[in-house]
Amino acid sequence: MAQQTALSAPELVDRIVAGERRALARAISLVEADTPTGREVQAALYPRTGHAQTIGITGSAGAGKSTLVGALAREERKRGRTVGIVAVDPSSPFSHGAILGDRIRMQDLTSDGGVFLRSMASRGNLGGLSETATGVIDVMDAAGFDVVIVETVGAGQDEVEVATAAGTTVLITNPGGGDEIQSMKAGLMEVAQILVVNKADLAGSDTAVTQLKALLAIADLGAWTPPILKATAKTGEGIPELVDAIDRHQEHLHSSEHAEDERRALSRKQIVALARASLHRQALEVAHGSGALDDLVSAVAARRRDPRSAAESLLEAVKREWAASE
Amino acid sequence: MAQQTALSAPELVDRIVAGERRALARAISLVEADTPTGREVQAALYPRTGHAQTIGITGSAGAGKSTLVGALAREERKRGRTVGIVAVDPSSPFSHGAILGDRIRMQDLTSDGGVFLRSMASRGNLGGLSETATGVIDVMDAAGFDVVIVETVGAGQDEVEVATAAGTTVLITNPGGGDEIQSMKAGLMEVAQILVVNKADLAGSDTAVTQLKALLAIADLGAWTPPILKATAKTGEGIPELVDAIDRHQEHLHSSEHAEDERRALSRKQIVALARASLHRQALEVAHGSGALDDLVSAVAARRRDPRSAAESLLEAVKREWAASE
Repeated sequence: MAQQTALSAPELVDRIVAGERRALARAISLVEADTPTGREVQAALYPRTGHAQTIGITGSAGAGKSTLVGALAREERKRGRTVGIVAVDPSSPFSHGAILGDRIRMQDLTSDGGVFLRSMASRGNLGGLSETATGVIDVMDAAGFDVVIVETVGAGQDEVEVATAAGTTVLITNPGGGDEIQSMKAGLMEVAQILVVNKADLAGSDTAVTQLKALLAIADLGAWTPPILKATAKTGEGIPELVDAIDRHQEHLHSSEHAEDERRALSRKQIVALARASLHRQALEVAHGSGALDDLVSAVAARRRDPRSAAESLLEAVKREWAASE
Repeated sequence: MAQQTALSAPELVDRIVAGERRALARAISLVEADTPTGREVQAALYPRTGHAQTIGITGSAGAGKSTLVGALAREERKRGRTVGIVAVDPSSPFSHGAILGDRIRMQDLTSDGGVFLRSMASRGNLGGLSETATGVIDVMDAAGFDVVIVETVGAGQDEVEVATAAGTTVLITNPGGGDEIQSMKAGLMEVAQILVVNKADLAGSDTAVTQLKALLAIADLGAWTPPILKATAKTGEGIPELVDAIDRHQEHLHSSEHAEDERRALSRKQIVALARASLHRQALEVAHGSGALDDLVSAVAARRRDPRSAAESLLEAVKREWAASE
């Protein structure tokens, strides 16, 4: 480990490209910690990205995302593809919150050399989650995995951003999730390219399909109409059909006459999200350093100023500092 | 309406303070649309804030938040208090997505002069939701409501921010929501000052209470330990006890030796959230105006550059523009 720490970015890149898993794990840690070496590795690997199928799996807690990711990975392996998995959901059994039963269910995957698992903790309020998760996806892509699967909770904006960074986003719901489907944000429907009613062995799966169809009918869709599939991840039922659907969508992505536009739209979204997170971090550093924030907090706490105008004063102070250091 | 449009900020403020509801509704629209007059009204009203009890009600879709907010408002009215309600949940019956039955259930409230209802649409990706919602809460507070209740879905970061802008945040769960409770983000537990198991007439409410207790035991709590209450909002069961608990927490807020610290922490959080949203908006305007973003998008789409370094270049360009206009 001490030896690994000393590896330079170019050395790490060489080893990752050569398929060395320990170098990959190390590089991902550096990307996640957002170190200068991590950034260098990311930049050097980026031209090698674009070969993996990237798949986002999203849906609310309890929808069975982790089990479905496991089933999906097994089916991809059957088809001879290598699989990288990034779990962004803090409650995922792939993450810290793992309960024993889940770990055991996943054991065949973790011992398969063709599968690489990585969990990421949620980052709190700095919005750094999508920033680092897309970096980790890119590194796995460049490392040569045929498929990179990202599992997120489809709740926060961060998580939705992560999911949409994938080429194909799969939204998981359940039978009896009628209330949830009704209140589903239209935006979430519109980021998904495939809809799956998981736990389809339970009563009400046809109703769920009907509800999803109704929602799709009013959604603002492009050239691709999301298929609605039924699956039972626990038994593997419906999983080959899901992989077929993913393959069809990936083919659509690359063959579509709008492929170039979609690629530009994704790049734009990524650049803006990364710039936003970085800008916020930099501004906070300046604000804390200058003491301007403390003064404004006192004024607002005493109700001498409103938070809105205090925020604007803070921004002016930050921009003045930036201008002075140009 | 034409006459109202012409009202200046000071005129609006006078009328709001005098209790004129039409002026209040107008001012809220201006705050929501983020107009200069809206900002002026907000700034002028801010010294008058701090008298209302502000209560955030959060929890997942289908937990019964809207019914509980209705029941809570009725109980507060019984106690002689006036109530302002802000619904930020797009699926709330107080919002656009209202279904007829819900509207009818709420009719006694909407026809009560001591209750003022306002729904807000979710704002998409700009993070403007918490920005405007806290402004609307402040305006209602300054308008003299004894209680201001904010209803949000406890899912995204935005919604959590809105909920925590309230003095007392109440987190709603249900019996049988075991999966959900297990996977509940620790952060969400820690922002709540009162936990309510709603629909307590259903089987499993004691289990839910036990699970919440277990989660609380490992949460990072301050001087206040959140009580866990059972309620059945539909029948009103448990609602007086909830109002009592809210009153106790509000008393704690104001009498605690840490009251000043908590007030500063809240002010800091509000200023930073507002500055962040505004900074992002301003940066996007500059980035789009300069054409720098388009060039970077092309480079990333062609994989000549990685998104990360492109984002940094974009920020440098934006900061240069800001410096030039200083």
